[in-house]
Amino acid sequence: MAGRDFGKFKSILIIGMGLIGGSFGISLKKEGYAGVIYGLDLKQERIDTALEKGVIDYGYTDISKIPWDKIDLVVLASPVKTFKAIAKQIKPYLSDNVIITDVGSVKGDLVKELEELFKPYIFIGGHPIAGTEKEGVENSVIGLFRGKRFIITTDLSENDKNVKKLKKLWEDLGSKVEFMNPDIHDYIFGAISHLPHAVAYSLVHTIIALSKEKDINLFKYTGAGFRDFTRIAASSPVIWKDIFLENKENLVNAIDEYIKSLQDLKNLIQKEDEKKLVEYIAESRDKRLLLDE
Amino acid sequence: MAGRDFGKFKSILIIGMGLIGGSFGISLKKEGYAGVIYGLDLKQERIDTALEKGVIDYGYTDISKIPWDKIDLVVLASPVKTFKAIAKQIKPYLSDNVIITDVGSVKGDLVKELEELFKPYIFIGGHPIAGTEKEGVENSVIGLFRGKRFIITTDLSENDKNVKKLKKLWEDLGSKVEFMNPDIHDYIFGAISHLPHAVAYSLVHTIIALSKEKDINLFKYTGAGFRDFTRIAASSPVIWKDIFLENKENLVNAIDEYIKSLQDLKNLIQKEDEKKLVEYIAESRDKRLLLDE
Repeated sequence: MAGRDFGKFKSILIIGMGLIGGSFGISLKKEGYAGVIYGLDLKQERIDTALEKGVIDYGYTDISKIPWDKIDLVVLASPVKTFKAIAKQIKPYLSDNVIITDVGSVKGDLVKELEELFKPYIFIGGHPIAGTEKEGVENSVIGLFRGKRFIITTDLSENDKNVKKLKKLWEDLGSKVEFMNPDIHDYIFGAISHLPHAVAYSLVHTIIALSKEKDINLFKYTGAGFRDFTRIAASSPVIWKDIFLENKENLVNAIDEYIKSLQDLKNLIQKEDEKKLVEYIAESRDKRLLLDE
Repeated sequence: MAGRDFGKFKSILIIGMGLIGGSFGISLKKEGYAGVIYGLDLKQERIDTALEKGVIDYGYTDISKIPWDKIDLVVLASPVKTFKAIAKQIKPYLSDNVIITDVGSVKGDLVKELEELFKPYIFIGGHPIAGTEKEGVENSVIGLFRGKRFIITTDLSENDKNVKKLKKLWEDLGSKVEFMNPDIHDYIFGAISHLPHAVAYSLVHTIIALSKEKDINLFKYTGAGFRDFTRIAASSPVIWKDIFLENKENLVNAIDEYIKSLQDLKNLIQKEDEKKLVEYIAESRDKRLLLDE
């Protein structure tokens, strides 16, 4: 498609002034989007910060005050758990040609339920593979989505007019758009994103427990390696509680598989099986090294 | 202490031309050490690389050819598992005033056994808290130990003449020297270093297993976050097999504690206990954030 027109949306409403919603708004505004950006949040404080930072043009805490007739794209950017309640609340206000989308990390059944809830309006699930371990609209990053993948999970054709508009919007923000089945999406991200978060949170808990066991503050001895390794454990508790629960089935399966791998490793150590232990470590190492290529 | 004299050792023999041995040699040579550095390795190829890179002045593969009468410091820098066999091999050659030390990641019983084995010569255990995920003398880093901690584990007094010489050597390489009981050392590093390596290797294994489960190459979808998170899984299989086995008891205890933490987290997810789940994540997050201060 020619030129950066951001899918020709005239007015975008972002619901939820957090890191992702904020980075979406500020990136649009600083990268040449010509339309108007509205923001909605429960807290006036976050609206104020979003206005100060130039994330949005107008902000609201009261949904009835929003000029709904102007809005042709709604982006759900609050924690995933709030999406269904928000869908019910905003549906009566929506105008005819609106598209609703989201930036949540969980798709699967949630996307199917939202598609139903929003009917006759069009909901198209989306997931930008971008973020930082920081949270909050005050940490919004211009260009956060540049060079990153954006996944669309929809039953609609890739040639559907609305799907193409949404795709163009994200491409113009610099993202590489991919299409994926919502269940496959959740299996994949359960493994490569949600599981590593669970792993990091549990590791920090273990260091707390082991510190108590011998009354030594083990955190005093951690270096840069441990800090890098557990960086993702600094992510927001509420957002990750929601993601864990919304993708419960895949995550529990992944944790079970992980505990099995740990037990395999532990058994090799206990049996002092040097040959298999080297194989176990080398198999990991080889796979890991491929990722750097 | 005054001036950089590197503990006034005249000739240092480094046994094992790997990343740590190599970085030790090259840092000494490039940072003003005035004595002679000898290297010993099983493989001529590694000796050649060490000579080319300027890590050592003279290299040997045959221990009987080394001018032992000149050497007043021996540094064991091969995998920890080889230390005891090396001790037995070199002991007949040692000269009267020599000190033997090491740079291994495991201390505990190993240090006590080496102290016995080397008697009447003085062995002083050491552990530089430095490294990269790369291996091999070809990846030696000048200044690797600068600003890093160096841990000495010894029953000798901190005022012992030999202990002070070793301390001065590492201080002159820029390290901050600390003293620690060898058993406490292994408990601490079992938790904050060896466990995270086990965690990373197992995580990569899990992604391999989950890829097979649904016939999806999950590694294709991993991003920079996963790469950072699993960077330590790129470490050397042989070195880490040895470390895991030498610190078996502490590591198995840590893995057990870790599996417990994972099971706690999994139970909270399965029971959908939102309140406790947020608490679990927040406790990790809070501890983790303290590390950035």
